[in-house]
Amino acid sequence: MRKVDIIGVGMTGFGKHQDKSFIELAVPPILEALKDANIKPSQVEAGFCSYALAGRLFGAVTAGQTILWHAGISRVPVVNVENACTSGSTAFHLAWMGIASGQFDTAIVVGVEKMMIPNFGLISSGDTEIDTLEGLVTPASFAMRALCHMEKYGTTAKQLALVAVKNRRHASLNQLSQFRDPITVEEVLNSPMICDPLTRLSCCPNADGAAAVVLSAAGRSRRFTAKPVRVAASVLVTGSYENPMDLVPWETDYRACKKAYEIAGLGPDDLNVVECHDAFTISEILHYEAMLLCPEGEGGRFVETGATSLGGSVPVNPSGGLLSKGHPVGATGVAQLVEGTRQLRGEAGARQAEGARVFMAQCMGGDKDGDARSCTANILMNN
Amino acid sequence: MRKVDIIGVGMTGFGKHQDKSFIELAVPPILEALKDANIKPSQVEAGFCSYALAGRLFGAVTAGQTILWHAGISRVPVVNVENACTSGSTAFHLAWMGIASGQFDTAIVVGVEKMMIPNFGLISSGDTEIDTLEGLVTPASFAMRALCHMEKYGTTAKQLALVAVKNRRHASLNQLSQFRDPITVEEVLNSPMICDPLTRLSCCPNADGAAAVVLSAAGRSRRFTAKPVRVAASVLVTGSYENPMDLVPWETDYRACKKAYEIAGLGPDDLNVVECHDAFTISEILHYEAMLLCPEGEGGRFVETGATSLGGSVPVNPSGGLLSKGHPVGATGVAQLVEGTRQLRGEAGARQAEGARVFMAQCMGGDKDGDARSCTANILMNN
Repeated sequence: MRKVDIIGVGMTGFGKHQDKSFIELAVPPILEALKDANIKPSQVEAGFCSYALAGRLFGAVTAGQTILWHAGISRVPVVNVENACTSGSTAFHLAWMGIASGQFDTAIVVGVEKMMIPNFGLISSGDTEIDTLEGLVTPASFAMRALCHMEKYGTTAKQLALVAVKNRRHASLNQLSQFRDPITVEEVLNSPMICDPLTRLSCCPNADGAAAVVLSAAGRSRRFTAKPVRVAASVLVTGSYENPMDLVPWETDYRACKKAYEIAGLGPDDLNVVECHDAFTISEILHYEAMLLCPEGEGGRFVETGATSLGGSVPVNPSGGLLSKGHPVGATGVAQLVEGTRQLRGEAGARQAEGARVFMAQCMGGDKDGDARSCTANILMNN
Repeated sequence: MRKVDIIGVGMTGFGKHQDKSFIELAVPPILEALKDANIKPSQVEAGFCSYALAGRLFGAVTAGQTILWHAGISRVPVVNVENACTSGSTAFHLAWMGIASGQFDTAIVVGVEKMMIPNFGLISSGDTEIDTLEGLVTPASFAMRALCHMEKYGTTAKQLALVAVKNRRHASLNQLSQFRDPITVEEVLNSPMICDPLTRLSCCPNADGAAAVVLSAAGRSRRFTAKPVRVAASVLVTGSYENPMDLVPWETDYRACKKAYEIAGLGPDDLNVVECHDAFTISEILHYEAMLLCPEGEGGRFVETGATSLGGSVPVNPSGGLLSKGHPVGATGVAQLVEGTRQLRGEAGARQAEGARVFMAQCMGGDKDGDARSCTANILMNN
């Protein structure tokens, strides 16, 4: 397998883009990423496009072909990918696989979602209709995990809230984030209750948004850019659906991160900066544990130490995370890699993690019978 | 790159499956393919699932994970793929790529669509709303090609109709086809006009259906089965969108087939049996030409010679094709490979193509500015 680099990135601000169609939203980040990589559209040899809701909302079919054509990219293989919240990171994984295996030398990944639609909310969860009919909608299943974590490990509501406070503090330094006003623990705790113990500020908001990444075989990256970032590991796994009796951790999450560390020959102590899938405050705490940043059950106390704040030993979600940026489903996994690339290049401005050399993007999608349906772990590093 | 084999296949009959949900429809062909391959679910290392309409019709997200879990397959990477009518063949291409590159040794591909929904018709086409608003719906764009072909090459309405007659004659030998009663040229010409010159019997019908294929690294195939079929080439391309002035051939179609021949080291004379994307009668005639089975413009006269009938030199669509089986979009590309595998194994019963050693599956999806959005060509052969 060949080594693969990220050579260019681009993304929209996340938020409301009511002036742009679903297709139009995705084009500017592609142009930005191509320019950043100093690559011509005709030099891009494959395209992978991710969206999770556009079929349902807009009847989208082969949208990737249309989007890429608007950016000047045609004739090459293009695949449209859906894997719930890991749609973008799955598209990235496939692009990585194609280059690593020698199928093509360059590829572009574009993730996009337009979901700021009147009366649209993404709330259903669970595998079967009965789960949803019985009330196991997404916030409920995450609230259940939060309550279990509090009961089993003594995690407090304040610790949960600190995740949202930290990520909003980070977001205040990121012009691309939808919400940027700092918030306090009290504001998080006193915002409207969605599903006990998760208040509104404990849940990620909807957003429109798009993000793009250009990849190249490592041997050719420097033809395009002086600042390639190496993909040290790219892992995609699906749930085992075998642990419904333990509703705290996702087995899938642990497995994806462990496999990524093994492939990269690295461990949690090597990480300098992380983006993880903080769809809810409890999610980030559970992901700390799955990434082995702290022992199981210690996630609540870990955020309290400040280790995961900018300035701490391993800043998590310097971009503001899903909790502040919002969560345009198909774009999220790609946006994490955009942030990671900018951090490793030292281009993150006021929210730069000091000495960033190794970055992990953790992403998970869906929830089924006590496990994630899909989980990705991608490690990037300077080279 | 490693060699890859198909080691097992399965499919539902195509037609109405109103007793089964979208998810339930996809499970039996997986179980059939696993049994056919003599492989355990736990030995399958990756899954690729294709559907094009289930997001729109059922709000499906990560359906592949659920479908495969019902068949006992979990924990492994699973990707959901959409590429219009080439969704299934694109999923197959990715599975092939993963094995060829050494990412995994075995994989399953499952394509599924449930579209026999009251008041649902798949008619919109074109890239932009204005295309559809102005009347360039799918049958119209294919009718335009048919009229151009008739004008430019002297192709007759009778020749077009012969494609439908031939494929229905083949379908009469296939219990899995939705329509099996033989039809005559007169019946095709006298069936209700959809878009001149395409009558109802010149257009493929809707269907519910699912199909599955199990692949293995060639070095390991015989651990599972005594009758592996080799993937000699697997090609996916996207349109150039550069030939709107010539509305007869799809450049993409020619390019995909040419590349497949080059990779396989074979030519059109080597093909013994073919499945192609006969969404309309004119499609099959154009695909003959793109596959170089006959010179450009000769497709109408070629079908008249009987060469593409069972018993002819290169039987095309022995399964009955989309015109008889129906076209469950996400399943179609996989079903073509199921038929090809059965033909090469000599297991096609009354519709067996004699001496079948080399098979091509040609599939195309979408139509944009005079070109296909996506086109695949897969060549299978005995080994």
